[in-house]
Amino acid sequence: MALQPVLVGGAWRQSKNPVGSFAAVNPATKISQPEQYPISGPEDIELALRAGQAAVAELRSTGSPAALAHFLDSFAEQIEARADVLVATAVLETALPAEPRLRLVELPRTTNQLRLAAEVIRDGSWQRATIDTGNNIRSMLGPLNGPVVVFGPNNFPFAFNSVAGGDFAAAIAAGNPVIAKGNPGHPGTTRILAEAAFAAVRASGLPLALLQLIYHTTPETGLHLVSEARIGASAFTGSKTAGLALKAAADRAGKPIYLEMSSVNPVFLLPGAIRERGEAISRELYASCSLGAGQFCTKPGIVVMQQDENSQRFIEEVQAHFAQNAPGTLLNKAGLTSIARAVANTLLQLSGDHFLAHPHELQTEAFGPVSLLVVAEDITQMKAIAAHLEGNLTGTIYSHSQDEDDPAYEQIEPVLRSKVGRLLNDKMPTGVAVVPAMNHGGPFPATGHPGFTAVGMPAALLRFAALHCYDNVRQHRLPLELRDRNPNGRMWRLIDGSWTQQDV
Amino acid sequence: MALQPVLVGGAWRQSKNPVGSFAAVNPATKISQPEQYPISGPEDIELALRAGQAAVAELRSTGSPAALAHFLDSFAEQIEARADVLVATAVLETALPAEPRLRLVELPRTTNQLRLAAEVIRDGSWQRATIDTGNNIRSMLGPLNGPVVVFGPNNFPFAFNSVAGGDFAAAIAAGNPVIAKGNPGHPGTTRILAEAAFAAVRASGLPLALLQLIYHTTPETGLHLVSEARIGASAFTGSKTAGLALKAAADRAGKPIYLEMSSVNPVFLLPGAIRERGEAISRELYASCSLGAGQFCTKPGIVVMQQDENSQRFIEEVQAHFAQNAPGTLLNKAGLTSIARAVANTLLQLSGDHFLAHPHELQTEAFGPVSLLVVAEDITQMKAIAAHLEGNLTGTIYSHSQDEDDPAYEQIEPVLRSKVGRLLNDKMPTGVAVVPAMNHGGPFPATGHPGFTAVGMPAALLRFAALHCYDNVRQHRLPLELRDRNPNGRMWRLIDGSWTQQDV
Repeated sequence: MALQPVLVGGAWRQSKNPVGSFAAVNPATKISQPEQYPISGPEDIELALRAGQAAVAELRSTGSPAALAHFLDSFAEQIEARADVLVATAVLETALPAEPRLRLVELPRTTNQLRLAAEVIRDGSWQRATIDTGNNIRSMLGPLNGPVVVFGPNNFPFAFNSVAGGDFAAAIAAGNPVIAKGNPGHPGTTRILAEAAFAAVRASGLPLALLQLIYHTTPETGLHLVSEARIGASAFTGSKTAGLALKAAADRAGKPIYLEMSSVNPVFLLPGAIRERGEAISRELYASCSLGAGQFCTKPGIVVMQQDENSQRFIEEVQAHFAQNAPGTLLNKAGLTSIARAVANTLLQLSGDHFLAHPHELQTEAFGPVSLLVVAEDITQMKAIAAHLEGNLTGTIYSHSQDEDDPAYEQIEPVLRSKVGRLLNDKMPTGVAVVPAMNHGGPFPATGHPGFTAVGMPAALLRFAALHCYDNVRQHRLPLELRDRNPNGRMWRLIDGSWTQQDV
Repeated sequence: MALQPVLVGGAWRQSKNPVGSFAAVNPATKISQPEQYPISGPEDIELALRAGQAAVAELRSTGSPAALAHFLDSFAEQIEARADVLVATAVLETALPAEPRLRLVELPRTTNQLRLAAEVIRDGSWQRATIDTGNNIRSMLGPLNGPVVVFGPNNFPFAFNSVAGGDFAAAIAAGNPVIAKGNPGHPGTTRILAEAAFAAVRASGLPLALLQLIYHTTPETGLHLVSEARIGASAFTGSKTAGLALKAAADRAGKPIYLEMSSVNPVFLLPGAIRERGEAISRELYASCSLGAGQFCTKPGIVVMQQDENSQRFIEEVQAHFAQNAPGTLLNKAGLTSIARAVANTLLQLSGDHFLAHPHELQTEAFGPVSLLVVAEDITQMKAIAAHLEGNLTGTIYSHSQDEDDPAYEQIEPVLRSKVGRLLNDKMPTGVAVVPAMNHGGPFPATGHPGFTAVGMPAALLRFAALHCYDNVRQHRLPLELRDRNPNGRMWRLIDGSWTQQDV
């Protein structure tokens, strides 16, 4: 059977000397999908790198913010025009529910992200243009000197897809071409998204290699790709094992890599909150744990509370929710293999002493609807548990609606705060709003660097930018963003220490 | 002879089981200084890590921007009070000239940096507080979760000293304690600076372990330090060999490390500029190359021009400057060993063809008053040379004062721009102004990440910060910077997409 073509070098073409092939497997029916996709070898990669470098040079000389913004808007339209086939294909490949999840939540989130990225480009403030008039030194954030390699995860076939998701949108908005490495769990979905993107590239007048796609590689080829001198940076969302291997290779080559690897997202329930509204919290907790069959990166994996009669009743309520509900279907072969222990709805309960005796082992992320309930002796032990947490994307504290939990909060919060990227009060962490203040990041090993976020416009673009400085450069040779005149009249620039939308 | 004490755990104390000792050697007289300093082993490091972690926790609960700013201002005063002994000691240890270099240039630059950092803290805008009122999500940059380890270079005993220089000031201003690893070339200078800092710590009411100092370690201990789970990040300025070894260790542990390693700082002289003002440029070039005995990180190491009669005359003029002037004294033993080939004023000349045949070898930084003159066939070959450059801190283009060099500029600039952190017109790169728009950074291997700068307030602080996000957190629990009310009435915050100094 013919293999599906890859998108490299500005055209759909047969993979050159692929090292193997694969098909998607429906994780619910276990049926293989009919299309066969290539596992790309060194020749596809080499062509992609050359074309990616050429696209970088072409963007530098002829690319414009307007054209990139037009591409992203047009891509969103192309996705909407293909919504039916995208949803149908994603259902077959992932067994995720068509509605509301795929059609009503994830697809609109994806097109919204693309349009937000287009707006960020048109606005231009993300570049943080900084002008010191006295010294005539001017700087701003701009593209890297090579294409960005994006590795997509298996749990969001649209919103984190390597050719359409948040990392893709951020890399493009920062002015970089993308080499996408699709997730092998949903190659057909990725192909349709890439067709939509390629139609938008053609309509925008941008380099045809703005986006390139390979579906799968060997691990060795992946390591080669992230450490290639000709790339600008990489972004990876997935397992800690694969992420750390890619990080090691990229680090050795001096290439930035941004990773979102693992997080248990601890939730601390203070005694007053459980006494006041334990039943409601138990429902929120179950809903958050089971969302997307428990495969969200912000799923609450550890819940910590103090031993008392209210927390005992709370645990019984949570157990009842877990027992009553059928587990969702877990994603694809790779997912199934690594989570064999966690295929049913699972709730584990143990003491604070037990947790503190084995903190590292118990923080291994369970990728499924499993949560660990840790019952501590008292607030002091809850604080000790917080101190033993590794880096996480989120940390949550529920407290009484009035001030009665404030003393406990003041003990636990400073410790928890230092371990997480986003601290929440009185809500579960699974919602990740695409807003400027969002942080979908956190200390290692949740990510590779505590200063960056993978979600939130324009902050997510900062990962894919270099600082470009111009010292005594003549006015007509400066990028438009750094000339005396504000190029669009709305871009925020830091001129002699004050943020302004005015001209110099 | 008794060893000089280290500053660890909040007190000056004898090094515990040092693995050796050393003394500074005057690089001009070759005379060893009388004081003996310890080479710290694991016990000093362990004490420093524990005290550093305790200081992090103490700063989190009781530290205030005002106290940190007070410390930095007070430190600057303490340095000024010790100016005579600092200059005298630095002269003995480094053989750098007392005036103007040490007393009139570098010392004021150092105190200026500390005071600028204090002002940055008081202002607060560096934290980039971002508030989305609709979702009640708020974020800002804040301290890391561990002390910052600073490795000082040998070439600036004050301005880049591990206990007083730019990295120190930036790490402290971002709210982190510092563990300083002094440069063994000038331990006495470092000791006096640390005494000044410690006096300021005591006066500020901050944790006594805000600053800790060890003078020297084995390479193994250095690798351990940058990869320790309890540190926040590291900063290193020095050789590429040492920097890459530290980077590998830090990367494996998932710890951010910022490196300033090497740069040849290419200068492109376009034909019209040489014809118009070649003699003046030859003087500027010699002055820039020989500044600080050629040991500045932004020294122009490669000068590229087109073959013609003007450039031939220019080369003769440059050669005359190099021949007429005595070489400066090069720094300390380590420096002397590694630059044995470059101890005299040296000017090498070769063809563009020759350069393009050996681009990698010829970019090895010569740490001394040596420069490479590359004479290209034409502009096209100059552009090819630019394309073969590695990552650099700076790149410079001199062109005719009118527009006659503009076509050549347009060919070369996009290529050179992508290889450097700071692009200059018509001036030599050795001046590094401490202003918000400065970029003292650049693509690997000049540094470890193209998005950060080591000089420039407040940009340099961004290296030592984590992104802290608060989602639905109650108003009275938020940091002051993120509450509705602007805490100082002048801090710039991004509220619902607009930069403002107003309250929410």
